[in-house]
Amino acid sequence: MRWIRFSVKQQTYYGILQGDQVQRVQGSPFESYEVEEVYYPLGSVQLEVPVMPRTFYCAGLNYAEHALAAAKKAGKEPNLPPRAEIGYRANNALVADGQTVVIPKDASEKIHYEGELVVVIGKKAKNMTKENALSCVFGYTIGNDVSERTWQKADRTLWRAKNSDTFKPMGPWIDTDFDPKDAITTVKVNGIEKTVYKTNEMIFDVPTFIEAMTRYMTLWPGDVIWMGTDGHSPDLVSGDVVEINISGLATLTNPFLREE
Amino acid sequence: MRWIRFSVKQQTYYGILQGDQVQRVQGSPFESYEVEEVYYPLGSVQLEVPVMPRTFYCAGLNYAEHALAAAKKAGKEPNLPPRAEIGYRANNALVADGQTVVIPKDASEKIHYEGELVVVIGKKAKNMTKENALSCVFGYTIGNDVSERTWQKADRTLWRAKNSDTFKPMGPWIDTDFDPKDAITTVKVNGIEKTVYKTNEMIFDVPTFIEAMTRYMTLWPGDVIWMGTDGHSPDLVSGDVVEINISGLATLTNPFLREE
Repeated sequence: MRWIRFSVKQQTYYGILQGDQVQRVQGSPFESYEVEEVYYPLGSVQLEVPVMPRTFYCAGLNYAEHALAAAKKAGKEPNLPPRAEIGYRANNALVADGQTVVIPKDASEKIHYEGELVVVIGKKAKNMTKENALSCVFGYTIGNDVSERTWQKADRTLWRAKNSDTFKPMGPWIDTDFDPKDAITTVKVNGIEKTVYKTNEMIFDVPTFIEAMTRYMTLWPGDVIWMGTDGHSPDLVSGDVVEINISGLATLTNPFLREE
Repeated sequence: MRWIRFSVKQQTYYGILQGDQVQRVQGSPFESYEVEEVYYPLGSVQLEVPVMPRTFYCAGLNYAEHALAAAKKAGKEPNLPPRAEIGYRANNALVADGQTVVIPKDASEKIHYEGELVVVIGKKAKNMTKENALSCVFGYTIGNDVSERTWQKADRTLWRAKNSDTFKPMGPWIDTDFDPKDAITTVKVNGIEKTVYKTNEMIFDVPTFIEAMTRYMTLWPGDVIWMGTDGHSPDLVSGDVVEINISGLATLTNPFLREE
């Protein structure tokens, strides 16, 4: 099943996607809902971020090639993460599929995409094991962990490097049947393929992260976990359009524009 | 005015504190509300975290003495922050005044408090200046940025060191009239004074942080900014009770208990 969050005439709803039609619901899949006999063509609604998480988790370095490339660029020894230690991103930066990523006017030219699988939590969970970890997962969506590398290197925290407004596109929908096992992540810039990797070739997979996290933390319905990225991005410029496709899941598309 | 969030018979409300009485409202001060003619004695209600923030910001090192002490303990050169760069904490860790901080069973003995002033945002804000920054502030409350120092030093992120469940007590209420100018922060353990500092002697004050943050980020109603701490904490043990008083604002009290 595919869940979308959308607006019509300034009102925001959840809906179930059936082909090109959206069936509206009252409520939310994270609490309770009732299906309504109201339908919209997908093209007629305004897509919204599919969930505003209570906590926005992000794995950071979680694919070997990306970690090695990052180390090389920084002139450091490769430093593959020895344990599944989760990081964070910020809700202010979230935007929906189709919305513009605004590059701050004082940002350097080192603006990069990171196409990521996103896990959406459906049930309150603590002390999960690898074996039962997936039982708290509601579904999957796609994230673009947009990064300004000069700030990422220079600042004490990832605040503006990763969390400037619009730097976290997420969507377009949540797929509850998706299985990352054989999926391929493909990132295109202006229609040209730039990065292709096996979605599931993570250093630490989803059950491993959920087991590690829930030893100390309660996961709540609506929490998201961004699973990291592989490969590396060219420098993006104003006017570029970035499409992140995860096969069997969806495509997340966002134009980039430098602030005047 | 003092706003509290509380539960009665499994229902959660906002209320206005008047002496020892809580006047219930429908709605929230961050959206819209209506005052009701329903009153409870403060002692009869269950206090809740005064707001579940959309984004949970935290200044980290923001007082000179604490930064110098932290550097000395780590055997490093003092590294005072050169700019107001904001950090983050996680909503899963929030608990209310009076609730127990649970020390994970595999945590070291290096469990420390950090008593902090908390800014609560009331209005959507972008591109604020130091001069108008305080116009987006709704009020102030108190936070205890509980930390496990061994994990803080060893891990790649602050996940379990700072964000284990219950590691972020916040409350007891939001005071909309408080002015940090002449306030004193006092932390007691089991009734004995351990840390006293001038609340407003920050390296970067509230307007400086809001100006810096809103250059890149939109602040939303309900966002919180924890302003850092001064001094240092003794190692806390199971059974300790930590009280953080900010003069003119409130006292935040939480017992600590090690997980069996």
